Amino acid sequence: MNVNGTPTRTIWLAEDGATVEIIDQTRLPHVFEVAHLTDLDDACHAIKAMLVRGAPLIGATAAHGLALAMRADASDAGLTIAYDRLYATRPTAVNLRWALDEMRALLAPLPADERAVAARARAVALCDEDVRLNEAIGDHGLSVFRDLWDRKGRPDRFNVLTHCNAGWLATVDWGTALAPIYKAHDAGLPIHVWVDETRPRNQGASLTAWELNQHGVPHTVIVDNAGGHMMQHGLVDACIVGTDRTTATGDVCNKIGTYLKALAARDNGVPFYVALPSPTIDWTVADGVAEIPIEDRGAGEVCRLWGRLDSGDTAWITVTPEGSPAANPAFDVTPARLVTGLITERGVCPASAEGLAGLFPERATAAAE
Amino acid sequence: MNVNGTPTRTIWLAEDGATVEIIDQTRLPHVFEVAHLTDLDDACHAIKAMLVRGAPLIGATAAHGLALAMRADASDAGLTIAYDRLYATRPTAVNLRWALDEMRALLAPLPADERAVAARARAVALCDEDVRLNEAIGDHGLSVFRDLWDRKGRPDRFNVLTHCNAGWLATVDWGTALAPIYKAHDAGLPIHVWVDETRPRNQGASLTAWELNQHGVPHTVIVDNAGGHMMQHGLVDACIVGTDRTTATGDVCNKIGTYLKALAARDNGVPFYVALPSPTIDWTVADGVAEIPIEDRGAGEVCRLWGRLDSGDTAWITVTPEGSPAANPAFDVTPARLVTGLITERGVCPASAEGLAGLFPERATAAAE
Repeated sequence: MNVNGTPTRTIWLAEDGATVEIIDQTRLPHVFEVAHLTDLDDACHAIKAMLVRGAPLIGATAAHGLALAMRADASDAGLTIAYDRLYATRPTAVNLRWALDEMRALLAPLPADERAVAARARAVALCDEDVRLNEAIGDHGLSVFRDLWDRKGRPDRFNVLTHCNAGWLATVDWGTALAPIYKAHDAGLPIHVWVDETRPRNQGASLTAWELNQHGVPHTVIVDNAGGHMMQHGLVDACIVGTDRTTATGDVCNKIGTYLKALAARDNGVPFYVALPSPTIDWTVADGVAEIPIEDRGAGEVCRLWGRLDSGDTAWITVTPEGSPAANPAFDVTPARLVTGLITERGVCPASAEGLAGLFPERATAAAE
Repeated sequence: MNVNGTPTRTIWLAEDGATVEIIDQTRLPHVFEVAHLTDLDDACHAIKAMLVRGAPLIGATAAHGLALAMRADASDAGLTIAYDRLYATRPTAVNLRWALDEMRALLAPLPADERAVAARARAVALCDEDVRLNEAIGDHGLSVFRDLWDRKGRPDRFNVLTHCNAGWLATVDWGTALAPIYKAHDAGLPIHVWVDETRPRNQGASLTAWELNQHGVPHTVIVDNAGGHMMQHGLVDACIVGTDRTTATGDVCNKIGTYLKALAARDNGVPFYVALPSPTIDWTVADGVAEIPIEDRGAGEVCRLWGRLDSGDTAWITVTPEGSPAANPAFDVTPARLVTGLITERGVCPASAEGLAGLFPERATAAAE
């Protein structure tokens, strides 16, 4: 999507054909800065320190990271080390493992001297594939929104609530949950987005607001606490979120707090949709609450916030008193029973084993074997 | 309760017998500062700018504000002006109106030259009464906690989640929701408190954490998004919150986000209690969601945060991008159906018209007439 009017992706090859460039998302929304990844260390750091975040973009960055590693050491040992180090950067996103498995399956059978070139080509292809999947999600989601808007009598404002950032910044382009929003806006639906700020890292207030602003989509930032009240008062027509991992049964692991919005949506009859490219589905997991490991990202993110001082400089502040500890589970699991539908690149399905198997029979069958 | 080991209230008469002193809560947890109120303007500002907050403390400050006003102009016109200006400071808290009505009922029949002395005495008495009510709530809540702890087999850690600050800082002393927590801690129950940070104003992270810390109650700050996940994983034994206004039918208006925690508690079988002194009950309202006006406090509180820089100075930062608007409803209403029980100074009752009428028959009857 556009940044200052220029079409931009979140990750791309530099003109030298080797260096990988990314938007440093830890600096948004106050500073737009491009970071350069030249080796495995850079790629691991970019994922771990969240210069890139969002399940699809983590996968894309891991693929490019493996390609960078192959330039330095394309031996079998080098491949194993790079795979393991990249895999250890973040524990929750299933795309990370998926992208690394794709890359390893391609590279392992090749002679070492062919791996670097093949890896780069495959990383680029994975990125293009991500863009195609997300645009397809956008088209299917647009149909869902158009239908809801029609059924409400085409009101002057169609209010959609989203949590965290599942926009183009979380992917290579388009986004997952925001793809239908961009499609709807471009198609002339009078869409307005309630943007959950999404503590502790404020991906909503900083990233979702920033990208909607750049694209000109009407939106309003609210604190995470406000969505239930908005729904009680008829101010939310639909919720749509992304996911870091969806189980084969339709449970949805996403940014902490998603579950609370799904409960409020259910209590108020608001449809609750989850947008996901199929690599986000973990066909090996059936019970999300019991089985998905939840990353604890430490007290710092809760106690300290980053922002722009009145002087224009940026700074960190501490909000908690000295001596008060903090806990920071980064994700929660929304049980399938609270999800109205899953919007995938192949269409929309119920959040259930049957629903997912209907859209992805080959994957469901493979997982069962 | 104690501040640096010294028993302190949130509001008291200075040694001159006229000036009212308060803790400036906008400076906590980083700076402990006493503010001095000498006239009606000071009192209105203290409430409006939230140097004092919390329904009971707002009521106490309004009473003292009316007493200060009587020192300058004790005429009927002066009484009306002071009542109206204080009443207009905050729209949601019912204690404000209750305290002002109590004061006016006492003062209106008196000759003007007796009003200042009588008003000061009544304001002081109202404060003492608040302390008594809250301590009684603490005793009743302790029984509830002890019972829950016993039924769970007296685990090593009894986890209670609270939202916002309904501690002694929200009252004159003891607090409402935190009174049972202090009582339980002092009685030797192994209580641990999950403190919701409570965006946008962070009363949990800044005030609740600060006062629990001062009293030595084990606690952990979490973002508002985390409580549902904690409940899904059995890490919350009970929720307890305060309220700014409770309807005659048991609907609870409290800090924005309370409703989301009540939904999660219901979904996970966690008891959800609301602690309230009876002046917080609005006997004139039956349907909280439809009838209680919700204060919108403006975008600034969402977009900007205050905290301590690494230098030790304090500063404001902006977290949202330029051009992104924000909305800020300050309260929401939790329907009675989600509330396990109301803990009042007279005991615990179901959140229903019958429950409240059972404990407060004289008030319920008067309201019905």
